[in-house]
Amino acid sequence: MDTRALAAEALGTAFLLIAVVGSGIMAAMLSPGSVAVALLANAIATGVALYVLITIFGPISGAHFNPAVTLVFLQRGDITFLLAMAYVTVQIGAGIGGVWLAHAMFDMPILQVSTTTRTGASQWLAEVIAAFGLVLTILGGIRHAPGRVPALVGAYITGAYWFTASTSFANPAVTIARALTDTFAGIAPAGIAPFILAQLLGAGLAAVTARFLFVAANR
Amino acid sequence: MDTRALAAEALGTAFLLIAVVGSGIMAAMLSPGSVAVALLANAIATGVALYVLITIFGPISGAHFNPAVTLVFLQRGDITFLLAMAYVTVQIGAGIGGVWLAHAMFDMPILQVSTTTRTGASQWLAEVIAAFGLVLTILGGIRHAPGRVPALVGAYITGAYWFTASTSFANPAVTIARALTDTFAGIAPAGIAPFILAQLLGAGLAAVTARFLFVAANR
Amino acid sequence: MDTRALAAEALGTAFLLIAVVGSGIMAAMLSPGSVAVALLANAIATGVALYVLITIFGPISGAHFNPAVTLVFLQRGDITFLLAMAYVTVQIGAGIGGVWLAHAMFDMPILQVSTTTRTGASQWLAEVIAAFGLVLTILGGIRHAPGRVPALVGAYITGAYWFTASTSFANPAVTIARALTDTFAGIAPAGIAPFILAQLLGAGLAAVTARFLFVAANR
Amino acid sequence: MDTRALAAEALGTAFLLIAVVGSGIMAAMLSPGSVAVALLANAIATGVALYVLITIFGPISGAHFNPAVTLVFLQRGDITFLLAMAYVTVQIGAGIGGVWLAHAMFDMPILQVSTTTRTGASQWLAEVIAAFGLVLTILGGIRHAPGRVPALVGAYITGAYWFTASTSFANPAVTIARALTDTFAGIAPAGIAPFILAQLLGAGLAAVTARFLFVAANR
Repeated sequence: MDTRALAAEALGTAFLLIAVVGSGIMAAMLSPGSVAVALLANAIATGVALYVLITIFGPISGAHFNPAVTLVFLQRGDITFLLAMAYVTVQIGAGIGGVWLAHAMFDMPILQVSTTTRTGASQWLAEVIAAFGLVLTILGGIRHAPGRVPALVGAYITGAYWFTASTSFANPAVTIARALTDTFAGIAPAGIAPFILAQLLGAGLAAVTARFLFVAANR
Repeated sequence: MDTRALAAEALGTAFLLIAVVGSGIMAAMLSPGSVAVALLANAIATGVALYVLITIFGPISGAHFNPAVTLVFLQRGDITFLLAMAYVTVQIGAGIGGVWLAHAMFDMPILQVSTTTRTGASQWLAEVIAAFGLVLTILGGIRHAPGRVPALVGAYITGAYWFTASTSFANPAVTIARALTDTFAGIAPAGIAPFILAQLLGAGLAAVTARFLFVAANR
Repeated sequence: MDTRALAAEALGTAFLLIAVVGSGIMAAMLSPGSVAVALLANAIATGVALYVLITIFGPISGAHFNPAVTLVFLQRGDITFLLAMAYVTVQIGAGIGGVWLAHAMFDMPILQVSTTTRTGASQWLAEVIAAFGLVLTILGGIRHAPGRVPALVGAYITGAYWFTASTSFANPAVTIARALTDTFAGIAPAGIAPFILAQLLGAGLAAVTARFLFVAANR
Repeated sequence: MDTRALAAEALGTAFLLIAVVGSGIMAAMLSPGSVAVALLANAIATGVALYVLITIFGPISGAHFNPAVTLVFLQRGDITFLLAMAYVTVQIGAGIGGVWLAHAMFDMPILQVSTTTRTGASQWLAEVIAAFGLVLTILGGIRHAPGRVPALVGAYITGAYWFTASTSFANPAVTIARALTDTFAGIAPAGIAPFILAQLLGAGLAAVTARFLFVAANR
């Protein structure tokens, strides 16, 4: 098994969660009066982190950092079943590790469970759209501008924090990890399963759409 | 007719309206005290969405997402009359669909009509300038830096939200769709016609200017 | 004389002032409570406008939009004396035109004179540093990353709005034009002359520094 | 010794500190009510400054501006011991000069000492992570996208201001210089030594990690 790829997935996903949760804590702390300013900082910090992480780890592991993305590449035949399972395991574990590191940096209890309820059909629709857009961005980028995938994903997520009602989790590993922080970015555990289902549905729809749109067709 | 191109125009315009209207709803909701913070988030979310959408759909349909842009390309002979009409129809329909999806995501009534009055000579001048700048950006980008058109359009719109008095609709399909949302980004229906006229005027002026400025001239 | 180049300088400088003054008006209007949010929007709008304008007009006129920059290129022998004088004239005239268009868009009196005092040794030092940094950015970019000059200048100005005490005018044409608006971006006429002197000093220092640093030296 | 390289390190580090401290002063002055808005402006101004400075000075000196980075390149054998020592000396001196220029621009006493306590295990962990991420970004960028190192470092620092609890000093020369300003960006002198130790530890860990991850391995 490719140890370097797994290490890249681990480091990248851990840093992604440090970025998401850490900037959320900082933002909520510094901006008690305006959730909008907090979300803006959170969105920008997450976007630039993704740009960096996908650039430096992409050539090593593909820089999935996201089980939904790994499953899409598995279904396309770009990765073996065994490696895909290892990716998903590492993503979930490292994501949780990243949350704990963020807690340690901000001098908070390491072990937390979120109490922020995120549920309801509207939120789930938002997650379908968020994951659909993310996977379409990745597959469209790979097809039409492979060198720009890092910038595209960073830009997409910065925007999607704002234009999806759920602030765009769009990532099962991130969703699970964010259940373990009772801060700005948290999600109460009861919300995990439907969010992940919605994300997988959105990712699947995007994979089907991409097969039609992003093939090297006879134009 | 090119089904893939029409699908790309539909998906792109729908997502553009999700970005514009969705981020507007989120921003107004989170920033009741500061319209400036709301517009900043709205402008950034729209800009990054355009960067992504034009990158992934550009090679398929040209990524117009905008009847004024389609008419400019029709006049330049880059697209047939029939396909242009299909583009415009799809842009308007998909734009409205995007607004409705945004409403659904934010758990609002799907069918709305805007009550935000946007009218007057100053606003119309702003739309002339907004569309003039947008089309000049596109045609200048195609001439001098074709690979950067997505970034140029995204950057232009992010800025134009701020430096035009109308917050830069600059797009007839977007204008029509935004009449169907009574949220941050809305425009009361009475304002549609003059806005579109102003946009077409600005786009036409830009096309004329570009013919002089952006030709492969004898320098 | 190169009509297209002069037209490009005119359009570019006019749009630059629309961006600077228009976004300043919008920002001050929407953010009465926070000058910081206003300046942030102003800085971002100006930066992205510069990125777009230099990209689309650069290959036609060099996209100076700035008499201090034109003088630097004159001294380097990149432009004739006559064309340089025409550039400077057009930049000043078009800059004023841009301010008036911004006023018209925001339904304000066209003719205004600023009452915002910007003076004192600290402000002048800030303008020396602002122009020094701007010209070094341009000449360093031309030497080491010519394709990125538009992004570099846009990025530099977005930052310099914040890190220079004068919010970085760094441009004599912009300084003169901004004396004709009594809004966020204005400067009272008494401040013009020392600002321009400081800008020319900074630009000259940068030209000298660049001759040492950015030559194709024997390394 | 390479005079041009030392001049580039001096100018770059001085400008970096002008950006960090100057934008911090401006931000705190304009945003007394919201530290979050101040930090957002500070983070954006620092990020764009790094993008510009690394682009224009990188080909001359490598654009380290950071003793921790210089030590990493020394250990890799990319720079001689003597030049490395000269780099570090120049970085510290020029950084302090930049702080003083910022004070002069904002009409403040030139000589100041910070009274902002930044200490404790959480802050030190944050600096380990901040420097680890910075050096990994640089080495990963050099390996996989050398032309993008300036954008990567700028993006990383903009994000890290938010997602590390210490706002990411990540640079011994910057840390020393920021002890000499009693403004937004300051750090009381007692905090210097442990911050620098943490930064060197983080940089060292990143160098080791990079040797495993970013080699031209047998894949």
